[in-house]
Amino acid sequence: MSRFFIVFAYDGSVYKGFQRQERVSTIEKELMRVLKIINKKKEVFVYASGRTDTGVHALRQTAHFDLDINIAASNLKEAINSLLKKDIYIIETKEVAPEFHARYDAKSKEYMYKINIGEYNPFEHKYIYQLHKDLNVTAMRRALGFLRGEHNFKSFTSLDKNEKNKDCVRNIYRFQIKKDGDIVTIFIQGSGFLRYMVRNITGTLIEVGKGKIKPEEMIKILKAKDRKAAGPTAPPEGLYLREVYY
Amino acid sequence: MSRFFIVFAYDGSVYKGFQRQERVSTIEKELMRVLKIINKKKEVFVYASGRTDTGVHALRQTAHFDLDINIAASNLKEAINSLLKKDIYIIETKEVAPEFHARYDAKSKEYMYKINIGEYNPFEHKYIYQLHKDLNVTAMRRALGFLRGEHNFKSFTSLDKNEKNKDCVRNIYRFQIKKDGDIVTIFIQGSGFLRYMVRNITGTLIEVGKGKIKPEEMIKILKAKDRKAAGPTAPPEGLYLREVYY
Repeated sequence: MSRFFIVFAYDGSVYKGFQRQERVSTIEKELMRVLKIINKKKEVFVYASGRTDTGVHALRQTAHFDLDINIAASNLKEAINSLLKKDIYIIETKEVAPEFHARYDAKSKEYMYKINIGEYNPFEHKYIYQLHKDLNVTAMRRALGFLRGEHNFKSFTSLDKNEKNKDCVRNIYRFQIKKDGDIVTIFIQGSGFLRYMVRNITGTLIEVGKGKIKPEEMIKILKAKDRKAAGPTAPPEGLYLREVYY
Repeated sequence: MSRFFIVFAYDGSVYKGFQRQERVSTIEKELMRVLKIINKKKEVFVYASGRTDTGVHALRQTAHFDLDINIAASNLKEAINSLLKKDIYIIETKEVAPEFHARYDAKSKEYMYKINIGEYNPFEHKYIYQLHKDLNVTAMRRALGFLRGEHNFKSFTSLDKNEKNKDCVRNIYRFQIKKDGDIVTIFIQGSGFLRYMVRNITGTLIEVGKGKIKPEEMIKILKAKDRKAAGPTAPPEGLYLREVYY
């Protein structure tokens, strides 16, 4: 038995997220379908760095799995890609130590959120959030200055009833906004992320960009530790898991 | 009654081409569905500059139609866009003279064909031809030198049985290939195009780029006036109607 590590990209627009579920198509299910064929009909469990939600994309998601067959990592890439649907693609494969774990060994993750503030583009409606409104990027940059570093991000997540006491402290190392013509891209890198955290932060930053929330209000929002204190959840189509660092 | 001219873009990947057909979704049908609502349930016929095939895209397609209602061209854009599916978008609307015709008044058209010669991109499989092979762009440029100008393009089209005597002489004003990293883009502008002409020329140029056809062989291929003399038809996903000139 050998353990393999993969780096892969996917267009999440037609999938009900990463995690396997019955009756709907998910990234994990599609990977498991293909790996089972390669593994001579023996089920293969895929351990990703984390889940992504419905409609969310990945540029460099990671995962590990064990195969019973003998195959060189260099041949595995082509074998998987030849069987996968066209909207998922394996970028890298390598054999790793049997104790390696794609989720537990990840040091940090980087997400990217793309917003089109210019004219609507019918080719991009599944790949960018089309806002049709100008944003004050300077105000947004000031706002994210208050979020950088270690904070309790409870105001930016949606907890289940049984997660009331969940530790919501996370460390955001890097927070950056780039503006290239009509495209505003937010980069967020941190030790870990809570459910909907990037989309809730983005939705709140957009409110700042529109002038509806002042940058300084971020302090109050963090302190509230209440989802209702922050802005809306930005839609999934603008979100990309960009990199997982080990 | 007023005649309107529209410029519009569409992602052709989920449509069975432009022209309306029963039981399948087409661009024309979707436009007619929306215009009928705007025109107080009275059918509106749409006259485009020309058709596009299944899976082919348009950046700036044009059309005209007549409306019975009173509406300012400036309001029409938003009215149509608010009702259209997300993969079609009206860029411009203007009122034109009642004798204006989007097809007959067009002076020339420009198409663009995009090829990815680098690593596969799962986000672009419906928007670019992913070839995974290097192309000799210099040879391709030499080949298209033989196609520029007025020629009988019968070798580059597929005629129906009842079209045997169709005039296949067309004038290609502009023929250009750009290479930007791994993306090779072919631009073709001419007085008019035959069915599959751009995709058949592109498929033949790709054979030249792979070294399977010599640039000089273009002369022989044109002379043959036989579809079998040219290379294969390039797939639809790389093709865009880029501009219609009046």
